[in-house]
Amino acid sequence: MKKLINSPESVLAQTVEGFTLAHSDLVEAHTDPVFISRATPTPSGKVALVSGGGSGHEPLHGGFVGDGMLDAAVPGAMFTSPTPDQIEAAIKHADAGAGVLNIVKNYTGDVMNFEMAVELAEADDINVRSVIVNDDVAVEDSTWTAGRRGVAGTVLVEKIAGAAAVRGDDLDAVTTLAQKVVDNVRSMGVALTACTVPHAGEPSFTLAEDEIEIGIGIHGEPGRERIKLRTADEITELLLGPVVEDLGIGNGEKALLFVNGMGGTPASELYIVYRHARKLLEDQGVEVTRSLVGNYVTSLEMQGASITVLRLDEELTTLWDAPVKTAALNW
Amino acid sequence: MKKLINSPESVLAQTVEGFTLAHSDLVEAHTDPVFISRATPTPSGKVALVSGGGSGHEPLHGGFVGDGMLDAAVPGAMFTSPTPDQIEAAIKHADAGAGVLNIVKNYTGDVMNFEMAVELAEADDINVRSVIVNDDVAVEDSTWTAGRRGVAGTVLVEKIAGAAAVRGDDLDAVTTLAQKVVDNVRSMGVALTACTVPHAGEPSFTLAEDEIEIGIGIHGEPGRERIKLRTADEITELLLGPVVEDLGIGNGEKALLFVNGMGGTPASELYIVYRHARKLLEDQGVEVTRSLVGNYVTSLEMQGASITVLRLDEELTTLWDAPVKTAALNW
Repeated sequence: MKKLINSPESVLAQTVEGFTLAHSDLVEAHTDPVFISRATPTPSGKVALVSGGGSGHEPLHGGFVGDGMLDAAVPGAMFTSPTPDQIEAAIKHADAGAGVLNIVKNYTGDVMNFEMAVELAEADDINVRSVIVNDDVAVEDSTWTAGRRGVAGTVLVEKIAGAAAVRGDDLDAVTTLAQKVVDNVRSMGVALTACTVPHAGEPSFTLAEDEIEIGIGIHGEPGRERIKLRTADEITELLLGPVVEDLGIGNGEKALLFVNGMGGTPASELYIVYRHARKLLEDQGVEVTRSLVGNYVTSLEMQGASITVLRLDEELTTLWDAPVKTAALNW
Repeated sequence: MKKLINSPESVLAQTVEGFTLAHSDLVEAHTDPVFISRATPTPSGKVALVSGGGSGHEPLHGGFVGDGMLDAAVPGAMFTSPTPDQIEAAIKHADAGAGVLNIVKNYTGDVMNFEMAVELAEADDINVRSVIVNDDVAVEDSTWTAGRRGVAGTVLVEKIAGAAAVRGDDLDAVTTLAQKVVDNVRSMGVALTACTVPHAGEPSFTLAEDEIEIGIGIHGEPGRERIKLRTADEITELLLGPVVEDLGIGNGEKALLFVNGMGGTPASELYIVYRHARKLLEDQGVEVTRSLVGNYVTSLEMQGASITVLRLDEELTTLWDAPVKTAALNW
């Protein structure tokens, strides 16, 4: 296992330390229990947004803490859910009197631990809601998941709900809007290579030299099928087809097209995929009015990509365009 | 060779197509010859900045085209210098009457082709200067290079010279300032794995399972030594030591610390390196007042990182902080 780490045990703490030092204008580290918050308190009366999940998907979620997006992020150990006490501490810290919305990716451990944290926080009279993100159309039920998995679409939920909180929506309204994004976003990914979790020391699965996995999960969970390597355009069609079909987006509609890198993919390849996905959408009469391309929800050093489509209306577009100041999204 | 491409021949054109489609608010593609320019013309009377070099280092240079940084970028084929006619076309397009500064990484082919392009552009009465970036302290003379190589420090030169051009400095002043950045920036990198150029189909070098290369070049050119894998902190010391020594930075000085990913490195590992590099600098009395961490000058899917230190004064800090609006840097 070749990694720029000091030991498997120190990865999480040292990543959080380096991340919060490098971005001390935006974020602050809390160590007991571990979570990341905005460097300045949540503005009084603003609904607070909290997200979290296993580490190894950086910049998710710490990279999205800051003005216009999350107020706190809770990193678990590598590919492992954060604990209820971590989440509870983040909720308590983030609350500024208007309540807290949790944005939770649909993995059994995450959902359960966020639920327990909500109970703990409610006992402290904090008003808490949660939305579950389940944008991955690849498979129903999987390792660690009942129902569909939450993947790259989570970034879009966090950005848009964050903007709604900034414009002054109350907790019910921010929750409704976050759910609207969940209802209108779908994703699917491909792996060209596996990744190695530091504690495991070995790749989490193996792919032959000419083999790729369509519908891969962000922890390397099985997808739909293993096939021989094809061209980027053919792979793009295999990913985009199920996304478009499940979303039911078509002629005359507008979309945000998001091509996400899994961590080890050259930027050039992401743009090659973006190019063809955009053409395919436009061929079906879908206008791509907003775009995002890059490493936002990764699986360590995995090579691969996912395609996410969000159906846009005027409100979602305005909220997407609203200012954001975080380590990973900034405009 | 596992890549999300359609063919080795189509990589450059399809990358440029996807990139300019995804960022059409910022950039525009030119296809005959190939270069990328700002979506809107260089403001009249502003010194124009042009850079370029072989592809495979994305987001360098196209990702730095936009307000406050480059006016045009010229991508050659993968790891191959752009041709003089490409560069000449970019210079002519970018010039807005105040002349053009070329920012050139120190590779023999790049330097030669930029020189030829300058002669061609001067024949058209365009006032052109060039600065050569040679920040890599690892080796003197190397594959493709006489003298030191130009690597990640190039981003800092482009940002700071870009801000000087926006504030209205004339061509002589922008050139002097770019050279000041070159004189005050040093870098060194490490490779954990090699990368594969699409045309070659095979990795450009091989490293044993427990071996890393200290001082690697961004095309996989040989560095200082191959050693057994060590901890992140030990590797950080091996990279930072020569950088600090060559730069001669020390007690009471301020620095920008830039940890750059080679393309296939998880963000967590970059932050682990950043954390220790920062501590080492601070132990020597150097105050890290600005930071940059991420994939900015890559080598396709290579796993590894480089450390860059820029000595900061008030002027360089102000120019670094000035607004920038490009695909890869935005604040």
